[in-house]
Amino acid sequence: MGELTWRIFFLGFLNFKTEKYVIAENRKLGISFRVFQICVLLYVIGWVLVYKKGYQSREETVQSSVITKLKGVVMTNSTESGLYLWGAEDYVIPPTGEQVFFIVTNYLETPNQRLGFCAEVSESNIGSLLFPAGVKTGLCLNSTGTCEIHGWCPVETVRKPSEALLSKAENFTIYIKNFVRFPKFEFSKSNVLDTGNDSYLKRCSYDNVLQPYCPIFRLGDLVSRTGHDFQDMAVVGGSVGILIEWNCDLDKDYSQCNPKYSFTRLDINLNSTVTSGYNFRYARYYKDEAGESFRTLYKVYGIRFDIMVNGRAGKFNIIPTVIAIGTGFAIMGMVSFFNRFVYSFVSNRHTGPPKYIPLGFYVM
Amino acid sequence: MGELTWRIFFLGFLNFKTEKYVIAENRKLGISFRVFQICVLLYVIGWVLVYKKGYQSREETVQSSVITKLKGVVMTNSTESGLYLWGAEDYVIPPTGEQVFFIVTNYLETPNQRLGFCAEVSESNIGSLLFPAGVKTGLCLNSTGTCEIHGWCPVETVRKPSEALLSKAENFTIYIKNFVRFPKFEFSKSNVLDTGNDSYLKRCSYDNVLQPYCPIFRLGDLVSRTGHDFQDMAVVGGSVGILIEWNCDLDKDYSQCNPKYSFTRLDINLNSTVTSGYNFRYARYYKDEAGESFRTLYKVYGIRFDIMVNGRAGKFNIIPTVIAIGTGFAIMGMVSFFNRFVYSFVSNRHTGPPKYIPLGFYVM
Amino acid sequence: MGELTWRIFFLGFLNFKTEKYVIAENRKLGISFRVFQICVLLYVIGWVLVYKKGYQSREETVQSSVITKLKGVVMTNSTESGLYLWGAEDYVIPPTGEQVFFIVTNYLETPNQRLGFCAEVSESNIGSLLFPAGVKTGLCLNSTGTCEIHGWCPVETVRKPSEALLSKAENFTIYIKNFVRFPKFEFSKSNVLDTGNDSYLKRCSYDNVLQPYCPIFRLGDLVSRTGHDFQDMAVVGGSVGILIEWNCDLDKDYSQCNPKYSFTRLDINLNSTVTSGYNFRYARYYKDEAGESFRTLYKVYGIRFDIMVNGRAGKFNIIPTVIAIGTGFAIMGMVSFFNRFVYSFVSNRHTGPPKYIPLGFYVM
Repeated sequence: MGELTWRIFFLGFLNFKTEKYVIAENRKLGISFRVFQICVLLYVIGWVLVYKKGYQSREETVQSSVITKLKGVVMTNSTESGLYLWGAEDYVIPPTGEQVFFIVTNYLETPNQRLGFCAEVSESNIGSLLFPAGVKTGLCLNSTGTCEIHGWCPVETVRKPSEALLSKAENFTIYIKNFVRFPKFEFSKSNVLDTGNDSYLKRCSYDNVLQPYCPIFRLGDLVSRTGHDFQDMAVVGGSVGILIEWNCDLDKDYSQCNPKYSFTRLDINLNSTVTSGYNFRYARYYKDEAGESFRTLYKVYGIRFDIMVNGRAGKFNIIPTVIAIGTGFAIMGMVSFFNRFVYSFVSNRHTGPPKYIPLGFYVM
Repeated sequence: MGELTWRIFFLGFLNFKTEKYVIAENRKLGISFRVFQICVLLYVIGWVLVYKKGYQSREETVQSSVITKLKGVVMTNSTESGLYLWGAEDYVIPPTGEQVFFIVTNYLETPNQRLGFCAEVSESNIGSLLFPAGVKTGLCLNSTGTCEIHGWCPVETVRKPSEALLSKAENFTIYIKNFVRFPKFEFSKSNVLDTGNDSYLKRCSYDNVLQPYCPIFRLGDLVSRTGHDFQDMAVVGGSVGILIEWNCDLDKDYSQCNPKYSFTRLDINLNSTVTSGYNFRYARYYKDEAGESFRTLYKVYGIRFDIMVNGRAGKFNIIPTVIAIGTGFAIMGMVSFFNRFVYSFVSNRHTGPPKYIPLGFYVM
Repeated sequence: MGELTWRIFFLGFLNFKTEKYVIAENRKLGISFRVFQICVLLYVIGWVLVYKKGYQSREETVQSSVITKLKGVVMTNSTESGLYLWGAEDYVIPPTGEQVFFIVTNYLETPNQRLGFCAEVSESNIGSLLFPAGVKTGLCLNSTGTCEIHGWCPVETVRKPSEALLSKAENFTIYIKNFVRFPKFEFSKSNVLDTGNDSYLKRCSYDNVLQPYCPIFRLGDLVSRTGHDFQDMAVVGGSVGILIEWNCDLDKDYSQCNPKYSFTRLDINLNSTVTSGYNFRYARYYKDEAGESFRTLYKVYGIRFDIMVNGRAGKFNIIPTVIAIGTGFAIMGMVSFFNRFVYSFVSNRHTGPPKYIPLGFYVM
């Protein structure tokens, strides 16, 4: 290209292009398009900007720390074990104040087991489903079908529990302390009221309207919020999820960022009522004067609580605002494109040549 | 503006605009553009709508509850400890039926340790890498280089294990009960067949084709599915991940929403075979008649299992459908825009004046 | 339609459409639009493609395995308990090498508790806030206000700790072994240098510049990186989060994919300094010669460490590249659309009839 050409090219580069428009006087069509456009405008402003808060930068992950503490004691009285006092150090397993913990509501004790030889099951339980408690020696009694085992003797009694020994556990209270941090926004908050007044936490009890900052829950109330009965659940055990949701608009005041609690039973289908409960075994080991080991085996039934923390926060930021508005414009442009496509079919008296605008072009 | 102007403005608002088109008769170019458009159309329909299920509302988070239970006993016979029977209450740590648990496959026992003064390492191990077992008193023996410590005596023997004492642990079975809930769709399901027939679970064994609803896994099989050998892993321990994936299309039948299990070894690089195993120590504390404490220290080697549950579900919803189709149109519009740009370079005989359409306009 | 019509339609389908353009010679406007366009172009290339790596397929979830191991012993000397040696098997709870663990830094021991009857609180603590240690029998002493309980006697002394008994715990070291896997890219890596030389790990200490592959942290240093003092925290306890981030560009070399560690205190508000610490109780059970149970109750204060692993990786993939570039074009189109809209207001001398282009059309 010559010098002149380059000059024209460069000047042209700084000019501006527009198109010739033809105004179609079809009022009926015009009205329906306007209505459609208003819908889109409402979608962009109402849904994207106002409802979905498209003008905010979001943080979907939260750093969370949960500490739990149980209070309450219960005295049990069983024929095998006699009187026994259960404190939080015993009935919370593990006792470390975790996010996931198990509370004993029923148990079966097999005291003073020693390694030795005995019959596979205790006489009263022949024919029941067996918990393998040892290695078979090969000696079997034909008359009953029981075999001798080498294991911890006497073996555990097999029976299905009918009532909960720690039924009073429904009066225990759980204190859930939850700290959350949104590192992107340098924001942190706790679910406990920052009064410096310790006695508040000693008296209060959670109420989502009156006392949202008192995260102390009575066990019985907590289970009944899942739609189940504590006493039913206590017999064979179960699993409960406690969901804490922090959905914070950080453009608002600090006091507006509050946790929302919800409670669900996790071990049962919505369309079924069958559960096999929750139980496990643990043992406490002792040594006698001769240095011989013996143990007490506990089969404990109870409720496992699983505290799940979700959090998301949003705060005004220029970049998502520009993108949200830009997307809005793009959708509006799309609508306009679609309108033009429909219009050209309905009325093409103004478009002059060509008479047959092929369909293909407009589907684009 | 006068009243008339407003009236014209308002009427104009209800009219409709179109553009004058010029048809370019370039068949070669036309064909290639059509092919391109078909590709885009196939992308929108095939990929976005059919493959990615763009017409569905999605839930990516799942509420999950996992309960595990191990079965099996093994009798060990070591020179230090003699015969010992390991039940699930001993070899599963913690025994609470958690999602993350450790199974003892090998161990080293140091019985009857008492607080006192002794040599840093037992004689047979001078020169080995040391586990700090106490506080040095300052007294050292020049001839051997060992120093006296104040700690739990006798100290643990240092030696690298060569064989697994609980090698029969490969016959243990893990029962994994997993409940999932998609709260958005009020859908919940378990990985266990809801038969009400307990004996089914006593006999069955997992098979991804024949018995997908029997989540009972033999330990040895489970490890071999990760591509490793149980006996190798049992000596110094390791870490195995069990991934349960629920990828459910809730527009289909309830029975079509099934878990998919996968197994990976987590403690080993793909391009390396070095592992330092998995072991830790714990102690059992006793008191003698005089009230003096003594303990048995266990160094246990074993396999840590980590059950990870992922879930996502989708169900038809009008909003994502509209958005998916809308996006499709937008892409089509984009393609059309691009085509026009290319075309104006290839053939501008129909565009009349101006002759030099600046490049800049079309890059837009 | 006749055959001819179909033929024209079909041929038209393979033709190509363009528009008549009018070049507006408004240099001022042209320049500002060019500047705007360059901004958009920079956004697409600089932000979307280069900074956000829009040409990569991403994996946001990571399979992770964490093993922790603590080293160090400390000898405590308290008036109640006398000399006692704390090893990792005692001060790490649970001792299993988990991702979440608690380290004892202070404790209160109540030895030789037996089930029986005693006064609610020990005499020295009348009036203090009480830990419920048993079931009230109903007998109360009017003079002091204390009541008799049936529980584990003697009850725990109530007092607020003033100094940490395990203050030397700041010299303990934590070894954090972390394996990550990105299954989508079949990539796995560990935070430990793969030397095969065990002695390296025995001598090294973490330094983010000099030794990024030595994940061994001194406890005191680790806490001080959160901006808090270990000795302050050790008295009543607290909660620390260790975040390991793997942000890997797998188009680069294997050695460029490194973890980034960060440390935060989780139990304290950013705008507050109040913490209630972290403590819990556990008991060790014993049996005397007569088979009677007694126990030692420990109230332990300490620091809970929570290791959180985040990971995301990206690798070149053709599909996101096409989408990123396509989106860029769409935004450019949008800008061009907006320009045309502005232009038609500023200068409409070239557009001829109609004189009044209604606003509505351009908002689209």
